[in-house]
Amino acid sequence: MAPDAGLEPLLSPKSVALVGASPKQASVGYVILENLLNRFKGVAYFVNPKYDTVEIAGRQVKFYKSLSEIPEPVDLVVIAVPAQVVPQVLEEAGKRGVKAAVIISSGFAEVGNKDLEDEVKAIGKMYGIRILGPNCLGVYNAFNGLDTVFLPTDRAGRPPAGPLALISQSGAVAASIMDWAARRQIGLSIMVNYGNKADVDDVELLRYFGQDDRIKVITIYLEGFRYPREATGFLEVAKEVVKKKPIIAYKAGRTSAAQRAVRSHTAALAGSYEMYKGLFRQAGIIEASNIREMFDMAKALASQPLPRGRRVLVLTDSGGMGIQAVDSLESLGLEVPEVPESIRRDLKRELLPFSALGNPVDVTGSATDQHYKVVLEALLPTAFFDMALVITLMQVPGLTQNLAEYIIDAKRFKKPIAVVNFGGSELVQTFTKTLEEAEIPTYSTPDRAAKALWALYEYAKIRRVVRT
Amino acid sequence: MAPDAGLEPLLSPKSVALVGASPKQASVGYVILENLLNRFKGVAYFVNPKYDTVEIAGRQVKFYKSLSEIPEPVDLVVIAVPAQVVPQVLEEAGKRGVKAAVIISSGFAEVGNKDLEDEVKAIGKMYGIRILGPNCLGVYNAFNGLDTVFLPTDRAGRPPAGPLALISQSGAVAASIMDWAARRQIGLSIMVNYGNKADVDDVELLRYFGQDDRIKVITIYLEGFRYPREATGFLEVAKEVVKKKPIIAYKAGRTSAAQRAVRSHTAALAGSYEMYKGLFRQAGIIEASNIREMFDMAKALASQPLPRGRRVLVLTDSGGMGIQAVDSLESLGLEVPEVPESIRRDLKRELLPFSALGNPVDVTGSATDQHYKVVLEALLPTAFFDMALVITLMQVPGLTQNLAEYIIDAKRFKKPIAVVNFGGSELVQTFTKTLEEAEIPTYSTPDRAAKALWALYEYAKIRRVVRT
Repeated sequence: MAPDAGLEPLLSPKSVALVGASPKQASVGYVILENLLNRFKGVAYFVNPKYDTVEIAGRQVKFYKSLSEIPEPVDLVVIAVPAQVVPQVLEEAGKRGVKAAVIISSGFAEVGNKDLEDEVKAIGKMYGIRILGPNCLGVYNAFNGLDTVFLPTDRAGRPPAGPLALISQSGAVAASIMDWAARRQIGLSIMVNYGNKADVDDVELLRYFGQDDRIKVITIYLEGFRYPREATGFLEVAKEVVKKKPIIAYKAGRTSAAQRAVRSHTAALAGSYEMYKGLFRQAGIIEASNIREMFDMAKALASQPLPRGRRVLVLTDSGGMGIQAVDSLESLGLEVPEVPESIRRDLKRELLPFSALGNPVDVTGSATDQHYKVVLEALLPTAFFDMALVITLMQVPGLTQNLAEYIIDAKRFKKPIAVVNFGGSELVQTFTKTLEEAEIPTYSTPDRAAKALWALYEYAKIRRVVRT
Repeated sequence: MAPDAGLEPLLSPKSVALVGASPKQASVGYVILENLLNRFKGVAYFVNPKYDTVEIAGRQVKFYKSLSEIPEPVDLVVIAVPAQVVPQVLEEAGKRGVKAAVIISSGFAEVGNKDLEDEVKAIGKMYGIRILGPNCLGVYNAFNGLDTVFLPTDRAGRPPAGPLALISQSGAVAASIMDWAARRQIGLSIMVNYGNKADVDDVELLRYFGQDDRIKVITIYLEGFRYPREATGFLEVAKEVVKKKPIIAYKAGRTSAAQRAVRSHTAALAGSYEMYKGLFRQAGIIEASNIREMFDMAKALASQPLPRGRRVLVLTDSGGMGIQAVDSLESLGLEVPEVPESIRRDLKRELLPFSALGNPVDVTGSATDQHYKVVLEALLPTAFFDMALVITLMQVPGLTQNLAEYIIDAKRFKKPIAVVNFGGSELVQTFTKTLEEAEIPTYSTPDRAAKALWALYEYAKIRRVVRT
């Protein structure tokens, strides 16, 4: 399905004008200019009456005096000028037929200037301009290179295109997530931070990403809603979206002092945390207990098939790590059933004498790549297991990079696999990279992999419920 | 106090003989030979009747035919020969007056050969040789370079000298921890893995590290004890040790399937997890819920002063991250009290207009290094706060590497500090490294920093109790 047309000019414009563009390095107007110049795949125009043509990074950049001077149509205007000038810019944009605006500028309702924000809203309404912000980071879209994040890339990295989207109530949290995801090559294609929500809000963004087929998993950083009706709208839209793709939310502001801080930070009514928990449950949203966990689950949900049940095969070369995995899986309500006796007899012939065959299947520290292959092929396709948690401590002498191929090969059984790989050597890193590139999610500790498998099981349950 | 003399020859020998040394690359006998050749600070002898003198990595290495051929005294013998030959080697060692043995070889009680293990124990007893193992990784000691870990350094990195010791019931878990700690430059000086515990056990090791003044924090990876009297001995010794330094334990094998796996892995009676929890509580041992958390707490305990109370100042440039920190701190029973009105008035003059002054103190995304300095100096020395959780999202434009100096400078207030630094850019990494080198513990997410501060508070409580 094609996404809702309303937000297209905002998130996927063909042409953008930056008002408040600047040749002064490190300024907000410069960083966004540089983003658009270097990576935007559409046409970008830069507006600042103080300049004509300036050489920037070896290129001649033309500055327009005003929006009205731009000869071609403009889909999106990005506004980075002082707050009091914003209404005038928006008015000009309206007259030109601009369809959307990202207002980066702060100095509105968040500092008590509610009248100025109301004025901006009214202008937007009058001209039919959809507004993101004010007081926001705006949009990062790796698909088309639209990037209004005013933090230089050497401070805040930009993640590669991929199946994840993030809707974040906090700009700084979003920027740090992008920087972190860039370093780890996590495919976070789209980030939207909506600031004061004068017009476009989380509900509408959620609906949009629900319809965008390039996005496989939607992640949400939320501090709270302002009005009960926001919560209701969110619930309704989320219920529809989870029929097609998983939503994972991390709600910050759970305790009393934290709720006090939420009020001061985003003016949201934090409400009781129990209310949000209930809302997520009703909507079929998977809840994360921190940001790292949100992306641990997201990468499994974006890459793995859904399991038919809760039975996990734990395959390990370390008894100790296997035990840790079982601890985590069982605490999450997943099962680690014993391997049936008949299959054990067959396995016994092909594994080392002192391997444990129960479950965890412990191929021991003397294991070779081949032992993993034998176990995966003997057990994963059977009706006894729904998914696999595979621990590969590469510190033991017999394992090589080839093991990655055997694990990737097991994707043909169409059951979820999560790999645990703890350590720091080059081998560990190359091995991890190979698996991740083949869309096998890897984790540094058993608890993180267990939580990711749990998310798959949980979403499979949600899908069964919402379909009926 | 000087450590118990009994384990000195085992952990800090002046001379070592490796029986089963080999010039064949990647073999167990080769890796240990290479470890001793390259890094051991005492005298190393190599025993293998098949060789005379062999050039290894550009050096002429002499092989002795047997232990008795070695002209000088030997403190420790490291045995890496097939199980059935071990008694004979140990007998020879006894006749030479060797005081300690690390038996790397497997093939004893763990595979049902209890008689062979009993024979080895009897020989040890007869000659007064203290035995570590059999079936173990043995000892890694960064202080004197003793290293019997038979996994090559490119697979399993070796961490630098520092204030932490690890006693691990699992060899593979220990090796992966070492590799991980090496990559992160975590000062894990000593690792001991005791295998079948024929003689030296966790209780004695705990007592020894309790007396070694170079060790500031003892970490323990435990699957379970074999007999109730082991638990009793452990409790008694731990109670004494925690008067001097913290012990952190991670107990694996908590659920029923995990306990089944524990029996198969280390033949330990896992017992109910509740029993271990009770034991740790009685002993004053801090419990970790996974390996990462164990070292998160350990690095704070090794570097920070103990807090007088539970009141935490949260200082942040991101409202969202501040809220997450408060969530975690309050769930752990720590307090985030509001900044007194009188101090707020003073702070207001020196910070940006829209900073939040309650607690979290949010200097906002427009903050400079100087704003952090102002807040730390105004609040940390006061009687209102016992410790600080400082969030420095370096993605915002105004922060520089200098901020690290201001935070380091706040050590003079003699209150614990933990820093949260999320992201992936070079700046984030350099900043983190500077802080860590100055012994300010840093964490990637607020929940990890909060848990580390909790551990400091918890240990302060334990110290107050055990002293009375």
